Amino acid sequence: MYETLTQVRVRYAETDQMNVVYYGNYAQYFEVGRVESIRNLGVSYKDIEEAGVIMPVVEMHVKYLRPAKYDDLLTIKTTLRQLPPEHRIEFFQEVFNESGKLLTSGRVVLVLYFLDAATNEKTHMPANLTEKLSPFFPAK
Amino acid sequence: MYETLTQVRVRYAETDQMNVVYYGNYAQYFEVGRVESIRNLGVSYKDIEEAGVIMPVVEMHVKYLRPAKYDDLLTIKTTLRQLPPEHRIEFFQEVFNESGKLLTSGRVVLVLYFLDAATNEKTHMPANLTEKLSPFFPAK
Amino acid sequence: MYETLTQVRVRYAETDQMNVVYYGNYAQYFEVGRVESIRNLGVSYKDIEEAGVIMPVVEMHVKYLRPAKYDDLLTIKTTLRQLPPEHRIEFFQEVFNESGKLLTSGRVVLVLYFLDAATNEKTHMPANLTEKLSPFFPAK
Amino acid sequence: MYETLTQVRVRYAETDQMNVVYYGNYAQYFEVGRVESIRNLGVSYKDIEEAGVIMPVVEMHVKYLRPAKYDDLLTIKTTLRQLPPEHRIEFFQEVFNESGKLLTSGRVVLVLYFLDAATNEKTHMPANLTEKLSPFFPAK
Repeated sequence: MYETLTQVRVRYAETDQMNVVYYGNYAQYFEVGRVESIRNLGVSYKDIEEAGVIMPVVEMHVKYLRPAKYDDLLTIKTTLRQLPPEHRIEFFQEVFNESGKLLTSGRVVLVLYFLDAATNEKTHMPANLTEKLSPFFPAK
Repeated sequence: MYETLTQVRVRYAETDQMNVVYYGNYAQYFEVGRVESIRNLGVSYKDIEEAGVIMPVVEMHVKYLRPAKYDDLLTIKTTLRQLPPEHRIEFFQEVFNESGKLLTSGRVVLVLYFLDAATNEKTHMPANLTEKLSPFFPAK
Repeated sequence: MYETLTQVRVRYAETDQMNVVYYGNYAQYFEVGRVESIRNLGVSYKDIEEAGVIMPVVEMHVKYLRPAKYDDLLTIKTTLRQLPPEHRIEFFQEVFNESGKLLTSGRVVLVLYFLDAATNEKTHMPANLTEKLSPFFPAK
Repeated sequence: MYETLTQVRVRYAETDQMNVVYYGNYAQYFEVGRVESIRNLGVSYKDIEEAGVIMPVVEMHVKYLRPAKYDDLLTIKTTLRQLPPEHRIEFFQEVFNESGKLLTSGRVVLVLYFLDAATNEKTHMPANLTEKLSPFFPAK
């Protein structure tokens, strides 16, 4: 299992008139969680794209348990439960507030493609990323 | 079954550097679909809120099949498959492009609360909304 | 002078906890106003980009007079006061609510570049756009 | 003069298909800069609102000099050039990239109101904020 924690401060822009974070904005928090999770391995998503691989999201599932409020310092927990086997990566993502309450839990699935959209051909995870992830998933 | 169609033009702001609509922005398109679906019954979501009822989203599930592009005129299909039985409403939502291709399909669940957040008490759907929806769901 | 009107319905996502449209979101309304202003001439901004010209914004000035509220049907008035002389276009933009009150007024300046960012070379307005705009600016 | 620096990492969501940060998103970066500038004095904007004062933006002026790119770690410099004299506060805001290049410069004017929107009455800056700002603006 590979798990990282990232913090995000709720912006005024992200609230709505219900005085909570708009439900669509968690997708951005999840994005930040995934990107920092990869950076934590010494790889940036930016470099992956520049190396010719894109990772569009193909599925997102979110459960909203408690609202996040303006100025909350949120902790985003991002988890890979297995070493991505093929061209799919599945992230489990949870958002906690400062008192440790779980606000939102999500699951986001991405697929790896070659950047050249014309071909629409799937690819595998970059070798350096697989290599850095492997130690977190020892063979049983 | 109650089904409505609404159109949304993709804004430049909604694209990302993958040259497609950012995955988090569909939540806004779904919101527009739901709001217009209710307005089509002669009720505005704004009036519901002003009457003291809020409808926070408690679940969202999205499948991204094909990307939406800048300036696409999207059609959002919003469907209620049953008359909301209790204090939950479940919307099925699909996004099509101009050539009728299904781009995204989603399911969004909302719960009805009294606006006074302090009580955190669930409520039922406003009577006028139930009344206007009923003809679409004849008793079998 | 060339002037067009476009309508935008305020989304829940665009409000903030002050119960008004977040000040940063007017940039999107202005964008919609400009794009529809050009489309009204029979040219789409998308086509301009695909023909190899981009129009990044270099200045924006906004005065916020009155707040826009959730579900307001806003009218965006977009005005060109002169035929863009060189590689700069200056749009005057105003946002009105349904009762005709001026909410926001802005001025946005764009510059025309060749899409190939590497060269960073300025260009002129596409000929078809100039041609279609000319009748609105008769020589005095 | 009172000046603070804050950092913001560019999110994928904030880019557009021109491969740069969408021009409207700088309003959010400016907001982060102002909020952290106030927090740096030991006062949170959230507390100001909860004490019954709101600070809507009445003017924003932005010059876009160079684009910010995805994953850039931006530095936002927020400056008060004078102790806010009445019920207006004027912030000067600049955005720099990691190599110290100035990307964007802005000026944002806010007005202080009592939260109770019904009265629409202007107010002064909270006393604790004035007190903490004063040392930065010695009488000449």
